Amino acid sequence: MDSARSKAEPGPAPGEMRDREEGLAFKAKFGADGLATCVAIDASRGDVLMVAHMNEAALRATLATGVVHYWSRSRGALWRKGDTSGQTQTLVELRVDCDQDAFLALVEVGGDGGACHTGRRSCFYRRVETDGDTTRLAFVEPPMTRR
Amino acid sequence: MDSARSKAEPGPAPGEMRDREEGLAFKAKFGADGLATCVAIDASRGDVLMVAHMNEAALRATLATGVVHYWSRSRGALWRKGDTSGQTQTLVELRVDCDQDAFLALVEVGGDGGACHTGRRSCFYRRVETDGDTTRLAFVEPPMTRR
Repeated sequence: MDSARSKAEPGPAPGEMRDREEGLAFKAKFGADGLATCVAIDASRGDVLMVAHMNEAALRATLATGVVHYWSRSRGALWRKGDTSGQTQTLVELRVDCDQDAFLALVEVGGDGGACHTGRRSCFYRRVETDGDTTRLAFVEPPMTRR
Repeated sequence: MDSARSKAEPGPAPGEMRDREEGLAFKAKFGADGLATCVAIDASRGDVLMVAHMNEAALRATLATGVVHYWSRSRGALWRKGDTSGQTQTLVELRVDCDQDAFLALVEVGGDGGACHTGRRSCFYRRVETDGDTTRLAFVEPPMTRR
């Protein structure tokens, strides 16, 4: 049971776990804080745009409207991505992981095509470089040219 | 400040935030539980394999050894992915997001090439299908043929 139970909370019976992993019932599992991680990827290009969180309301709103909603931890509010920035995320497909506590949203991005408030397409615009004791960041993605 | 402060905790001064987002200093931010999300993608194919968590020890071990370590929440232990399964993840590149509280690991997978303990390459092997009131899952990825 190495990798096996990496993300599962302790406790579930084997049958319940099998159901969760191999069944067709959607039983989204939220953490103690009511949140689950959602990774957004560009549906056409396939690259990772951002990592954010959904609570149950955000998940429901996303599925009901086809527009991705997150839970803003800083504002403590439901957040329809793009409301201010125009960087809406239209849901193409939502996937769930083995133990149903993380989501992968394949999205089509509106506005300038970006997802990051810093002006990059992706929030992951820096890589970590380590050389013995020194660890620094290096940019791998420039800001988009604003229209 | 819509998308802007989606993931930041409340409180940081503007200068500190700019530093964190636009600087080259690596200041990984862990949650109250000591964990940060890490998304693993296959470095060659680019697809998302899994979402797991790192604490500071896992991050350090990953950077020091070049082999991806996570924190197993279920076992409450440092977890070198692949120790049992053979599905090691050799780090090709580690990226960090804008506010430095999430990581993206580009990895080369050992063993059978998979990441999920259920026998699929990716943990995200089911999509969510919704049709009015009914929400079900559908498989999008079959188990790998075991060697």
